[in-house]
Amino acid sequence: MYPQSLTNLIEKFRLLPGVGEKTAERYALLISDMDELEVQGFADALIDVKKNLKHCRICGNLSDQEECSICKNPDRNHRQIFVVQSAKDVIAMERTGEFRGVYHVLNGLISMSKGIGPDELNIDELIHRAEDCDEIILATNTTMDGETTAMYLGKVIRERCPNTLVTRIAHGLPAGGLLDYADEITLSHALSGRKKIG
Amino acid sequence: MYPQSLTNLIEKFRLLPGVGEKTAERYALLISDMDELEVQGFADALIDVKKNLKHCRICGNLSDQEECSICKNPDRNHRQIFVVQSAKDVIAMERTGEFRGVYHVLNGLISMSKGIGPDELNIDELIHRAEDCDEIILATNTTMDGETTAMYLGKVIRERCPNTLVTRIAHGLPAGGLLDYADEITLSHALSGRKKIG
Repeated sequence: MYPQSLTNLIEKFRLLPGVGEKTAERYALLISDMDELEVQGFADALIDVKKNLKHCRICGNLSDQEECSICKNPDRNHRQIFVVQSAKDVIAMERTGEFRGVYHVLNGLISMSKGIGPDELNIDELIHRAEDCDEIILATNTTMDGETTAMYLGKVIRERCPNTLVTRIAHGLPAGGLLDYADEITLSHALSGRKKIG
Repeated sequence: MYPQSLTNLIEKFRLLPGVGEKTAERYALLISDMDELEVQGFADALIDVKKNLKHCRICGNLSDQEECSICKNPDRNHRQIFVVQSAKDVIAMERTGEFRGVYHVLNGLISMSKGIGPDELNIDELIHRAEDCDEIILATNTTMDGETTAMYLGKVIRERCPNTLVTRIAHGLPAGGLLDYADEITLSHALSGRKKIG
């Protein structure tokens, strides 16, 4: 019922995650109210991302250059590698400011249900890097696919690089998390991961 | 912390209504995963909207042409005009399939708080159209600004075109609305707008 050009734009916005008809309409109507330069800037930013963004050839993280800023940084500990599913996880971890090692981004997870095997992920390069490092920290999510991937990686790296320490990040109650609101899997992780105090 | 091109795109997405940092990140990361043709199509759709979309010169509705499809339709009753705030409201009303008249889109509301006066809205044209029609239905929202605008329009049109009927759409309980969940203003509208039955 909208004019063709607006209908087209609404359809494009619907491609974004979690955007339904109403939200796409609101976005498209806002665009139609923006001034021409702003809209041109938006369109250019879309094209630029596609043109300039690549995966770092070392760790697979998103980067405007061949190697990402973390891999190029000589102040980071390149013998400690934090393995994650996607570039978003790198940002989340960097925000803590606690980690001084480097990353490896798998760009996906091994998934039986989606038919994704180890060959389709950035895993060969990780095994290659593991030979030359002290610790591989597996930080894939605690979903079914995340656990499967962590188990697979742990096994392969221990076989190929027996001198490299392989660890998994801790799982348990989140900060401020209440016991009676926690789900069973979180609670079971919290119990099995308990530490001696005092 | 993201590469520059991705940061730019995240900033652009944050211009959209209700989009915060996290959502903009998710949108931008999805774009970086799309194939090049899809992204080009998205960018073209943005530019197209800006290039092709205009306000219908009769009613102010959004259109790809000088006159919108409703104003050009000879089967509509051009002597009955439904006055709304924005193009979204036209679509909402058209979805009911109940209205066979035409529209007038003000593209805003008179607003004391935002300093928007009648001269900044599509009102002169409405008064001009009102001279030649049977009924003006005021359908601005029941917000403070919506009521102010309806009151102003009602007064001006009655003065200038005393032969034109001016009506306001009914306000009351929505379909399926429960009495004890309704706010006071809705209930007070429902009471004052009550009709004789039987």
